[in-house]
Amino acid sequence: MSKNYDELKTYLDRYQAIRAALTLFSFDSDTYAPDDAFEMTTQITTILSKEAFDILTSPSVKALVKQCKTENLQPIESKNVLEVEKRLEQLSSIPADEYRASQILEKRSQAAWLEAKKKGDFSIFAPYLKEMIETQKRFASYRQKPGQSLYEVVLDDYEPGMTEASYDDFFGQVKEGIVPLIHKISALHKERPNFLKLSYDLNQQKQFNEWLASYIGFDLKRGKISETEHPYTTSLHNHDVRFTNHYYENQMDSAIFSTIHEGGHGIYEQQVDDTISLTLAGGAISSGMHESQSRFMENCIGRSKDFWEPIYPKLQNLFSKQLNEVSLDDFVKGINDARCSLIRTEADELTYPLHILIRYELEKKMFEEEIDVNDLPKLWDDLYEKYLGIRPDHISQGILQDIHWSSGMFGYFPTYALGSAIACQIYHYLMENEPLTSWLKNGELHHLTAWLKEHIHRFGGTKSTAEILKDALNENFEPKYYVDYLVKKYSALYDLE
Amino acid sequence: MSKNYDELKTYLDRYQAIRAALTLFSFDSDTYAPDDAFEMTTQITTILSKEAFDILTSPSVKALVKQCKTENLQPIESKNVLEVEKRLEQLSSIPADEYRASQILEKRSQAAWLEAKKKGDFSIFAPYLKEMIETQKRFASYRQKPGQSLYEVVLDDYEPGMTEASYDDFFGQVKEGIVPLIHKISALHKERPNFLKLSYDLNQQKQFNEWLASYIGFDLKRGKISETEHPYTTSLHNHDVRFTNHYYENQMDSAIFSTIHEGGHGIYEQQVDDTISLTLAGGAISSGMHESQSRFMENCIGRSKDFWEPIYPKLQNLFSKQLNEVSLDDFVKGINDARCSLIRTEADELTYPLHILIRYELEKKMFEEEIDVNDLPKLWDDLYEKYLGIRPDHISQGILQDIHWSSGMFGYFPTYALGSAIACQIYHYLMENEPLTSWLKNGELHHLTAWLKEHIHRFGGTKSTAEILKDALNENFEPKYYVDYLVKKYSALYDLE
Repeated sequence: MSKNYDELKTYLDRYQAIRAALTLFSFDSDTYAPDDAFEMTTQITTILSKEAFDILTSPSVKALVKQCKTENLQPIESKNVLEVEKRLEQLSSIPADEYRASQILEKRSQAAWLEAKKKGDFSIFAPYLKEMIETQKRFASYRQKPGQSLYEVVLDDYEPGMTEASYDDFFGQVKEGIVPLIHKISALHKERPNFLKLSYDLNQQKQFNEWLASYIGFDLKRGKISETEHPYTTSLHNHDVRFTNHYYENQMDSAIFSTIHEGGHGIYEQQVDDTISLTLAGGAISSGMHESQSRFMENCIGRSKDFWEPIYPKLQNLFSKQLNEVSLDDFVKGINDARCSLIRTEADELTYPLHILIRYELEKKMFEEEIDVNDLPKLWDDLYEKYLGIRPDHISQGILQDIHWSSGMFGYFPTYALGSAIACQIYHYLMENEPLTSWLKNGELHHLTAWLKEHIHRFGGTKSTAEILKDALNENFEPKYYVDYLVKKYSALYDLE
Repeated sequence: MSKNYDELKTYLDRYQAIRAALTLFSFDSDTYAPDDAFEMTTQITTILSKEAFDILTSPSVKALVKQCKTENLQPIESKNVLEVEKRLEQLSSIPADEYRASQILEKRSQAAWLEAKKKGDFSIFAPYLKEMIETQKRFASYRQKPGQSLYEVVLDDYEPGMTEASYDDFFGQVKEGIVPLIHKISALHKERPNFLKLSYDLNQQKQFNEWLASYIGFDLKRGKISETEHPYTTSLHNHDVRFTNHYYENQMDSAIFSTIHEGGHGIYEQQVDDTISLTLAGGAISSGMHESQSRFMENCIGRSKDFWEPIYPKLQNLFSKQLNEVSLDDFVKGINDARCSLIRTEADELTYPLHILIRYELEKKMFEEEIDVNDLPKLWDDLYEKYLGIRPDHISQGILQDIHWSSGMFGYFPTYALGSAIACQIYHYLMENEPLTSWLKNGELHHLTAWLKEHIHRFGGTKSTAEILKDALNENFEPKYYVDYLVKKYSALYDLE
């Protein structure tokens, strides 16, 4: 037992408690709070954010971290100390007045983005985007390490350990393996299956999705499902994990795959070990690792025939009018329908990584070249044409579609594709080494969630992505499984072999 | 502008922000949080409670309050300083270890009360009640002023300015005026009207109550209505006020009068001025004043014929099967049905104050005599027999019915009756001096809420109850209006004149 660590922990506990309050305020604003509450509530959350910041960056915390680093701590304790140190480095590298200015910029920039998107007018957002890129590049320069590119600084924030070279290699393989396949499928000009265009009662959809969440292993005693325009997952701790969904009458598959996707995130959060849940290392390791769990459940599992074999009759029964004539095979083909589209969040499993590739290439440009922000919309459109063969008619379907850049989140997008790739590596391992097929066909998903808990979830942020993969799969990250999986799966689905 | 006050305000803002977070956690736990979240969430809220306590009782705050008291501040600033000083006095009077022990006692005592109530076994709760009474008496003794009785110390916490002598006078008038009237009405042996026993569709009830809340002036853009077993009102600030309701199929009147009661509390909170909403003086003046607003709306307004005249057709229309044959007069008689009953929270307007009188007499005994807690159940039952002519069959309907004493809330009950009395004084004033009858008959409740805002609500806690009454009604608190109102109203309803 270290006296210094114990003292540090009282600060971290206070920090975590205020962070949890902020999480709850945010969730409540999204799902329940009255319409006109926002302005006053923002006064409260602004104070709480500052409070959390002040606790973490206090001289006492800095001194205690320094002390703790010289001591022999338990592994989890060491991990927490390293985590504080990392956040302190990030925060302390930015002068206080610049940090405050960046927070104001963020709010204005988000508002400008929203207005620009609504009005379809990039010029409203352009000056903010310019300032946001400059600010984030400057902030990155304050903590740039020797040999590190500016872009690598932010890439590392979201996926520690991934270098630009590894991402270049990864996206290179994706481009080489997937683009030709997509072009072949596009050339078939297949229609979107009819059953996906029919109308499905919203209450019945909700009923099925609630059951489905539970079926895949999301514990409804430790979690809740609510509704927002854009589905997401949030958690106060491992006993209180909440995700949201959105139900569309004419897109029954949308809510189903949001349930499995957000459920995948949620199960991860729920299965973090009790002893670390309320610590800094209580979350997931990284954005990529978190996304790997949602994409694994959504795509590798949730879009497989094995998964639907035991439960498709239930869905068919509930919506007999719409699905009576649709065989299991047709259903599985339908939910794996691939086609080039403009909106990332609506993209299918196959074309999705190209949306990310485009953003990755643009972010590299922003960080490594002197570009004029006014050129970005055309660059965006050209890349969509190049990789996906389509061009946005409207800027809100082009560069203005995502909120990320307006919030200064550069380097985040690549983790979405990385997550998909890790998912496929895990899937490959399980198919080779565990009876995954029979778990799915027998509806015994608890075997799967138990495996995920044992090898991935329970560690929360105490192990790095590389450590997780090494310990669980006995391998380093390897992009080839992703490309192999997509090529094999879609060649079969579209009879391209 | 005072530099000291500005600095004090940064502490108070932080204190208020954390208090708001605790309010949100509490509401969320009651209405939404998953079943198994409680234990982990309690770890978070315990830390936040301590954080708020530490900010308020920090040496800096104490020094700043001292400084500010010597300065010439704005009235609202002065009020906030006095409010901090008062809370500091309360908190600092109790040694830290005793305070911590009392918090542990409170949790155990509440759990014991719940178990005792469930099992119908007072002996489970008795030792905790004994310790709770002793603790609260000791705490009161630490801040007892010369000439003040121990009970007066806690009475003053909930209704500053009310002495034991004023309460004695008040309850004396209630007893003298109401008890004989209740005995007369009981002797009539009237049946509960049939329409109140019928079944009413829950969704239609919710629909009507949502409309009703809005009709009486509760702003649904700044407020929400949720569901809990026991209805209550809470607020984060004047733009986010939430109340809860409970719908019973066979007790349609229950949800309606909860809506009007909680709506009365809610409108008060919503109409506090923006400039003070997020300060210590942003709440209501006192428990009694808050309760006056809910009881005024519920009883004086919501149970009057004037109120229902324009809106009864709407209710009748919605529930035509149940209410077609029920005239407006019969409906109004029905919702004013008075009968002696055992449970305070279900009591009608007329018998309600006797439930409070009984608790007042018992609390006086606890604070001023050396009593054996084991004698309390019998004392309770005897008082119910004496004043209401009925005796509980079961202890859960007797002394174990309320949570208050298990939480150490002695001195709170009297404010419920006080609130009813203030309500009647306001009602009398409005009937004499404003066109209240026509506001109600014409469905123009905005005139009423505007009056309440102008004379009561907007001041929040910046004016005392006495100041409010003096400025708004040009009178001091005067219990006779309450007794007069009840005697006149119920003599007419039961043809006793």
